Amino acid sequence: MAFNGHQCDDESIDEDETPTKQPRSNKEMPGCFINEPKNEAAASAGRATSDRRTSNSTARQRSDSVKKTRPPFPWFGMDIGGTLVKLVYFEPKDITAEEEQEEVENLKSIRRYLTSNTAYGKTGIRDVHLELQDLTLCGRTGNLHFIRFPTHDLPAFLQMGRNKHFSSLHTTLCATGGGAYKFEADFRTMADLQLHKLDELDCLIRGVLYIDSVVSSGPSECYYFENPTDPDRCIQRPYTLENPYPLLLVNIGSGVSILAVYSESNYKRVTGTSLGGGTFLGLCCLLTGCSTFEEALEMASQGESTRVDKLVRDIYGGDYERFGLPGWAVASSFGNMMSKDKRESVSKEDLARATLVTITNNIGSITRMCALNENIERVVFVGNFLRVNTLSMKLLAYAMDYWSKGQLKALFLQHEGYFGAVGALLELLHPS
Amino acid sequence: MAFNGHQCDDESIDEDETPTKQPRSNKEMPGCFINEPKNEAAASAGRATSDRRTSNSTARQRSDSVKKTRPPFPWFGMDIGGTLVKLVYFEPKDITAEEEQEEVENLKSIRRYLTSNTAYGKTGIRDVHLELQDLTLCGRTGNLHFIRFPTHDLPAFLQMGRNKHFSSLHTTLCATGGGAYKFEADFRTMADLQLHKLDELDCLIRGVLYIDSVVSSGPSECYYFENPTDPDRCIQRPYTLENPYPLLLVNIGSGVSILAVYSESNYKRVTGTSLGGGTFLGLCCLLTGCSTFEEALEMASQGESTRVDKLVRDIYGGDYERFGLPGWAVASSFGNMMSKDKRESVSKEDLARATLVTITNNIGSITRMCALNENIERVVFVGNFLRVNTLSMKLLAYAMDYWSKGQLKALFLQHEGYFGAVGALLELLHPS
Repeated sequence: MAFNGHQCDDESIDEDETPTKQPRSNKEMPGCFINEPKNEAAASAGRATSDRRTSNSTARQRSDSVKKTRPPFPWFGMDIGGTLVKLVYFEPKDITAEEEQEEVENLKSIRRYLTSNTAYGKTGIRDVHLELQDLTLCGRTGNLHFIRFPTHDLPAFLQMGRNKHFSSLHTTLCATGGGAYKFEADFRTMADLQLHKLDELDCLIRGVLYIDSVVSSGPSECYYFENPTDPDRCIQRPYTLENPYPLLLVNIGSGVSILAVYSESNYKRVTGTSLGGGTFLGLCCLLTGCSTFEEALEMASQGESTRVDKLVRDIYGGDYERFGLPGWAVASSFGNMMSKDKRESVSKEDLARATLVTITNNIGSITRMCALNENIERVVFVGNFLRVNTLSMKLLAYAMDYWSKGQLKALFLQHEGYFGAVGALLELLHPS
Repeated sequence: MAFNGHQCDDESIDEDETPTKQPRSNKEMPGCFINEPKNEAAASAGRATSDRRTSNSTARQRSDSVKKTRPPFPWFGMDIGGTLVKLVYFEPKDITAEEEQEEVENLKSIRRYLTSNTAYGKTGIRDVHLELQDLTLCGRTGNLHFIRFPTHDLPAFLQMGRNKHFSSLHTTLCATGGGAYKFEADFRTMADLQLHKLDELDCLIRGVLYIDSVVSSGPSECYYFENPTDPDRCIQRPYTLENPYPLLLVNIGSGVSILAVYSESNYKRVTGTSLGGGTFLGLCCLLTGCSTFEEALEMASQGESTRVDKLVRDIYGGDYERFGLPGWAVASSFGNMMSKDKRESVSKEDLARATLVTITNNIGSITRMCALNENIERVVFVGNFLRVNTLSMKLLAYAMDYWSKGQLKALFLQHEGYFGAVGALLELLHPS
């Protein structure tokens, strides 16, 4: 599907770009670029499996073609979720003097604003540690920035867009997530912007496959926990997501979607649960008086859930051996809290920890059932619930390993919650 | 397995018992008695599928045999769960004058105490509406009483047993549930009682099949909701649980167990979730300051969960059509509670309702997955979470019907949480 007349070719000639900074990793966008994608997923993600190596003259012709068809700057991809807006922004670093002169002031202003700050307004944040430098996208080299802000601050974002005359740039704003639908009219009326709306699960998968394919040095994009059932020996290890299919993709945002992915274009939403990151934060706010995700996680890290939950051993006095339930397993989440004495003996930190454990284990348990039904052994967990949330990641790694007797592997990705936004950006550059 | 030397024959001669009261229903215990069980389940439950009709002389011989092998009174079955102790007590109504004279005072005292009261201590309750009258059990006719008290009051119960010299009766106390294991030593040391411990899932299934088979008049034991997706036309209807297999049995106590039952003795625990009745009550106590299940339910009945939960329409502005998620579906349970303004605008009743809806829908969702995997269409929900909890039952009926497009049927049983205790009693009378 093409829109706004911008379409990126499958090939590019910009093969001798010189990185201006030490790159975090060596990245190319498969599909737009010269290098072979490093794996099947990348090839699929970029839809460029043939006609890759071309002569210089052909390349030059293509260069002109790319220039004509690639969309004008700025390049954004946006994912408007129930809790957070995720924004990826491509900052070109290969701007020529001629281009610099021609560049309109509004465009410069946006670039400067985004790249010279790491915080925007009161709540916008650029995740600098996730920045992908020296990425080549549609024949241009630059840095990919990852920015997030709460969805309830979208009006302020639109106001900023209006103030910076964003609409004068005639860019296409590719947006996914529920908010692309809910706020479409607001984009039009408040900022004179027309959204190109994209399905969030399509974008998610495209984003995951793309990012995994372009990150080839630096911290591995994909990782897992070795010895997940042994806290003393549990360590993070890189994982190569080669031949990724079939894959169970669990996206933990405000709510949870579980997808069985058989190829980039062949996937199904197996199920979901409404008990997700929004439930954790919502309940924590109610139970502890905290007001941010970071605060909730900090409290959880200091608490003890076994004071709040009723364990198998609290009911059985030990294991429930016949059905393989160990004494330490939770029999009833928050089950101790029906007792006044026990309510009075727990701390807010204990409640935060129990909330985290409850939500995480429930997701883990539903995921295991899906993996079993779909006969899939690799599970990739993404979404912003996992951001700075090692507790939940280790818990998921443990649960997958323990209850499946080592059959299931829990995988995680560095760019946790940004894949939908990346997928939206890819749609701008390379419409499907 | 026999124990204590008491074993009940498969046959009985007491075919001309005269009910002393208008019976709630006409009941026989299959396996011990003359009447044909009304369905296959009953036959299986009683393990008496042959040699049922006998001549008078044979019957008389058997009568003597039954008398010799049936256990002495009192007859109890007990299920000690994480939250509640469930006790079933058989009150013989066919005591002869001779027997009356021979009966020891302790036994009379226990019978009088239990049957002349409907409340015991501060927290013990007899569910009079569930009493099964004129039941014939192992050749004796009487009433089956259903009593419950909180597990944390077990010490008071043991003290009462000690005061009433229960141990002098040399009865076998058949007990199931985790507490049968956890409190075994307490029974011995505090009340000089030896427990015969039984697996709770074995007892549950045996109890379900038995009670369903003996209740043949009065309110149907098994029922469902007709038109579950239309609140105006949704009504409770009797259901005949004939040829019950295969069956998904969902036991919602403090936690939840889901069993796929293929015959009385062939079943498996498919999965479970720690988010059960204990989670509902524990969270409600924390969030609303209530202290009992009844209070929590009353609050929930007056609240509105959509103020607490983030719905699909709150994120999408409407339906998420592509994946069949209607706007009214919950996207993130408690998802609105991360907003300070929204926290301040909800009532305790709203929070109680949201807790109920969250726990119920999560159980419904996991159940649907199990039903799908096991290819089972009938789901029986039991357990004390459903006691006086029409809200959850209708929600489960709705969820099963709506999300399975009418393929799944949610069934409920009048004796909700007592099946484990009934199964324990059956083991006393008819050891497996």
